[in-house]
Amino acid sequence: MPSEKAQPEIVLVRPQMGENIGAAARAMWNFGLDRMRIVEPRDGWPNSRAVAMSSGAGRLLDEAQLFGDLPGALADRTYVFATTARPREMTKPVFSPERAMQLAAEKVAAGEKVAVLFGPERAGLENEDIARANAIITVPVNPEYASLNLGQCVLLVAYEWMRQTGDVVHLSDDPGPKGDWATGLEIEKLAEHYEERLTEAGFFFPETKAEGMKQNLRNLWSRMSMTRADVQMLHGIMRQMVRWKDRG
Amino acid sequence: MPSEKAQPEIVLVRPQMGENIGAAARAMWNFGLDRMRIVEPRDGWPNSRAVAMSSGAGRLLDEAQLFGDLPGALADRTYVFATTARPREMTKPVFSPERAMQLAAEKVAAGEKVAVLFGPERAGLENEDIARANAIITVPVNPEYASLNLGQCVLLVAYEWMRQTGDVVHLSDDPGPKGDWATGLEIEKLAEHYEERLTEAGFFFPETKAEGMKQNLRNLWSRMSMTRADVQMLHGIMRQMVRWKDRG
Repeated sequence: MPSEKAQPEIVLVRPQMGENIGAAARAMWNFGLDRMRIVEPRDGWPNSRAVAMSSGAGRLLDEAQLFGDLPGALADRTYVFATTARPREMTKPVFSPERAMQLAAEKVAAGEKVAVLFGPERAGLENEDIARANAIITVPVNPEYASLNLGQCVLLVAYEWMRQTGDVVHLSDDPGPKGDWATGLEIEKLAEHYEERLTEAGFFFPETKAEGMKQNLRNLWSRMSMTRADVQMLHGIMRQMVRWKDRG
Repeated sequence: MPSEKAQPEIVLVRPQMGENIGAAARAMWNFGLDRMRIVEPRDGWPNSRAVAMSSGAGRLLDEAQLFGDLPGALADRTYVFATTARPREMTKPVFSPERAMQLAAEKVAAGEKVAVLFGPERAGLENEDIARANAIITVPVNPEYASLNLGQCVLLVAYEWMRQTGDVVHLSDDPGPKGDWATGLEIEKLAEHYEERLTEAGFFFPETKAEGMKQNLRNLWSRMSMTRADVQMLHGIMRQMVRWKDRG
């Protein structure tokens, strides 16, 4: 059974390869979307390749609704987004996935029935398909290189749906002091220095816990966001302890 | 040559399948990232399967830097993010991709050398790898279903880099009046009604332009975000025009 949560329907229009239908199902369910509609799939329906690719998200394919044409798939929808690789010469609003899913979330919350259309792998949606949409979604890709496949495009839209509606926690960070940050190599040398001396000192005891203790120490170093001065100071501390020991 | 723009290095740690390295290169370049480091690839380097999968982003593979171990790959880095499928029991800050790339953008702008680590396909990064990172990135997926592959994980991080640093335009929309929105079926019936009568009326002329004119009209209907009352009014207008003509 589909989840209770109101959400947009994801409509795959004339998808070609079953693998991509399966990949779309997985992309959707990663971000909590589980209502798929399929319009005129090239290789018929059900499709065993779609099922093979859908590992764990096969329920979405079992519950997907099949339609013979796009008007049928949109008959109960009140607001439709069409995804295109680049803005077409259409007089419709063009949204980023972020803005589109913000709007979708508002509309769904207000009881509207929303759909997002994705075109066939090779050519994308026809102008005739887009003519049935209220707005366009275009992913802001590198102008020199746009090569998102169907599954990736569904993934980004589903991810934005999650971002706009889910409980994403942004943990605060502790970026440490401003300044001359230590490099990975410097941290590594510090860790080695401490590991060597502490091994000599018999710190990593008992043997069975030694690896875990070393790892905890490395975690500590890399978590500290140290400046070069911090690293030098820590080297100095260790050197001083060794000198102290040597003096007896 | 890599692009001039300062950016994080994407570090693939012990990647297994060449196809996934190629997919990661494509994912990166879609969002303007073009600096890849590869640590101990399972099948050696260069890898023909990676090249075959990288269509159009092959330059990233040619220019990728190969390392024999992770400390080597991080030697010049000052801040390192590690991606994990779920938060590990590590005492490090855990960020969403969004927050992580905000922080990365700030750090890169301040001249820091940032890296983002991605683990092998099957098991992800080892705790020993994560111990060398300053912070963790975890994609907020559906708690019931987490199945992002390597290429998808790189894609989402690269997408967030673009969002935090690119010039993404959020076009404003015109959501129309609040109220009882027309469904797709109602819009479709309105479009058909107008098309039929306007065809009888000889509106779609000349024949060579008829299809384009019909499409423009459909674009107009779907762009209008009409309420049911709007649709009824438009039906009424057309019926009235026909009655008027019939009266002669």
